[in-house]
Amino acid sequence: MATVELLSDSELSAEARAVFDDIRATRNSDYVNNFWRALAHDPATLKRTWENLKAIMGPGAIDPKVKEMIYIAVSVAHGCPYCVHSHTAAARTKGMSEAEYHELLAVIGMASMTNRLVTALGVSIDDAYQVP
Amino acid sequence: MATVELLSDSELSAEARAVFDDIRATRNSDYVNNFWRALAHDPATLKRTWENLKAIMGPGAIDPKVKEMIYIAVSVAHGCPYCVHSHTAAARTKGMSEAEYHELLAVIGMASMTNRLVTALGVSIDDAYQVP
Amino acid sequence: MATVELLSDSELSAEARAVFDDIRATRNSDYVNNFWRALAHDPATLKRTWENLKAIMGPGAIDPKVKEMIYIAVSVAHGCPYCVHSHTAAARTKGMSEAEYHELLAVIGMASMTNRLVTALGVSIDDAYQVP
Amino acid sequence: MATVELLSDSELSAEARAVFDDIRATRNSDYVNNFWRALAHDPATLKRTWENLKAIMGPGAIDPKVKEMIYIAVSVAHGCPYCVHSHTAAARTKGMSEAEYHELLAVIGMASMTNRLVTALGVSIDDAYQVP
Amino acid sequence: MATVELLSDSELSAEARAVFDDIRATRNSDYVNNFWRALAHDPATLKRTWENLKAIMGPGAIDPKVKEMIYIAVSVAHGCPYCVHSHTAAARTKGMSEAEYHELLAVIGMASMTNRLVTALGVSIDDAYQVP
Amino acid sequence: MATVELLSDSELSAEARAVFDDIRATRNSDYVNNFWRALAHDPATLKRTWENLKAIMGPGAIDPKVKEMIYIAVSVAHGCPYCVHSHTAAARTKGMSEAEYHELLAVIGMASMTNRLVTALGVSIDDAYQVP
Repeated sequence: MATVELLSDSELSAEARAVFDDIRATRNSDYVNNFWRALAHDPATLKRTWENLKAIMGPGAIDPKVKEMIYIAVSVAHGCPYCVHSHTAAARTKGMSEAEYHELLAVIGMASMTNRLVTALGVSIDDAYQVP
Repeated sequence: MATVELLSDSELSAEARAVFDDIRATRNSDYVNNFWRALAHDPATLKRTWENLKAIMGPGAIDPKVKEMIYIAVSVAHGCPYCVHSHTAAARTKGMSEAEYHELLAVIGMASMTNRLVTALGVSIDDAYQVP
Repeated sequence: MATVELLSDSELSAEARAVFDDIRATRNSDYVNNFWRALAHDPATLKRTWENLKAIMGPGAIDPKVKEMIYIAVSVAHGCPYCVHSHTAAARTKGMSEAEYHELLAVIGMASMTNRLVTALGVSIDDAYQVP
Repeated sequence: MATVELLSDSELSAEARAVFDDIRATRNSDYVNNFWRALAHDPATLKRTWENLKAIMGPGAIDPKVKEMIYIAVSVAHGCPYCVHSHTAAARTKGMSEAEYHELLAVIGMASMTNRLVTALGVSIDDAYQVP
Repeated sequence: MATVELLSDSELSAEARAVFDDIRATRNSDYVNNFWRALAHDPATLKRTWENLKAIMGPGAIDPKVKEMIYIAVSVAHGCPYCVHSHTAAARTKGMSEAEYHELLAVIGMASMTNRLVTALGVSIDDAYQVP
Repeated sequence: MATVELLSDSELSAEARAVFDDIRATRNSDYVNNFWRALAHDPATLKRTWENLKAIMGPGAIDPKVKEMIYIAVSVAHGCPYCVHSHTAAARTKGMSEAEYHELLAVIGMASMTNRLVTALGVSIDDAYQVP
């Protein structure tokens, strides 16, 4: 299943190869996953996406492991099985315990339930939640 | 905007009142927000929803502040403005800094972008991401 | 809030007026709600949408009241407040009791929760659920 | 495809086994589908999810067959193929006719179309649809 | 994977066959794709869906190629892999270049990111964007 | 409604001011809309978002007007009223005719309908739509 071929290393343009080199160096791993091999047909989007991702997902105010857990939450709500699988693997690599994983899923499920109850009831936002 | 009236304290059934009492005691605050006042028309759902929420959002393997941040992420992806506002307020109350908030939004935005690129490209899941 | 003006009766084209006449006759009411007044700028879409709706939502194998309840469920999941409000009103007009309404919301909430748990876990479809 | 292994009966914890026993007794069938086998890694969520589902989907103001049809509608709108397949099977088991199934799909499709037209047009909610 | 069998030509009702004949004539191709073979169990929905599609996707104010690109955008945002694949094929058949395809994906990704940032921030609509 | 204050020009950091200057120069207009005023609390995300947007939405293989129409389609499917309003205004500014607008909405509605029918039926992707 795909709308484009996945490019092997030997099929990359010079610009795409440079991005792959940076992915490998940043992750300290030779493995480059299918998403980047699909995106490599368009070096401009490949480069922009990778650079944004690298800037956002690295160390900062939020623990990188927690960032992956947030990524899982968004990917589940958007119905993207590839993203769910790749970021669940990433979160585990970055130290997510099975206890944390189970709680993450419980929070996602709970939020999904109340999100839809709120929408069904047309609840208006409390003044207390408005920024002055 | 609403599909039901928001119930005031004096309009609650005995079962709904008991849930409101527990919300107030658990949160150590007299304020009960609009969601529960809309849900109070159906004491069974009110009670089940509150008990699930209390069980899931309390202390555990994940920091309660982080749980609220995950809740925001799901609520954004589901397009629920009420939920976004109420859980942003809750996350701040539980200690989310503005730096954490900005990073949270950046992660949500990034995940949204790659979720859709992956879906558009029909990328198949790497064997490496499959549980054996 | 709108991206087009809502047309009053005196601003309708002849084709749009014919559709409004049929809406009024079919519903046995003079009231034409905002959705049709926004759509009336494009008589072709107005006519096609109304005729499809009339064909689908009328009597058939499923009770019209239940059809409105299904419409609510879809509208909630799609995050359309207007649709939630208009079809909740329609379901009540067609006889939905408050007990049915509360159960409807509970089912929607439950489905939302398990939908996301299933997606998060990447559960593969049981052979038993596949049509031979 | 999965982010966790599906647990066989012999791999269940005592708490998970107790839930499986209740699923089997309630459904009067030995078959336990994949969703529960994935969820069984987390007995607390397994138990809570099953108990909520049992309470909500059983007899009440709405016919259990209709509840399954509503479940299908939500699952379709959330893009959950597993849920669509499992609840379509459940609805058929509970007596949904093919004529009802076809009408269900027509309503889901129609709602999806008008949901998006309304959102595109930014239609504001009629006063007539507001609860006083 | 399917909830109904895909009907072969020899299994079609007379009404469904007439629609298939029109699909073949309109597209000037003998190939009828799986969607129509699944929908053929319900000739009324088959006929209505095909006629709506034919009316909307043909020549008009917007180039048919661009209409397919918009169709891809909606299908991606709704998480429908089948639709993404079939309309990507259709857009290519109608002349979408690979450069256009790459830009389409970049726009979809960008919109997805800002859509979620806006929702997270609860930005209110500028007066300048309101129709008078 | 907002989770942060909208910043006025006098409240901007130096980095945010530089982005606002570029927005004004690029658009040849003094008006800076609310989205950027909300995002300005986080200059890094403000700058990254604006630079991505400027790169993607400018001239290229796809007409900028058509890009705005694709942006509308995604925003509608994601349920973002702000985005729908702002990009509908932008598309009109860039020359979208009312005839094109009406067709755009018809395509979005049609895609929404068939997206959900396909998901409900669990249609498997035709071999013809797979890239070799």
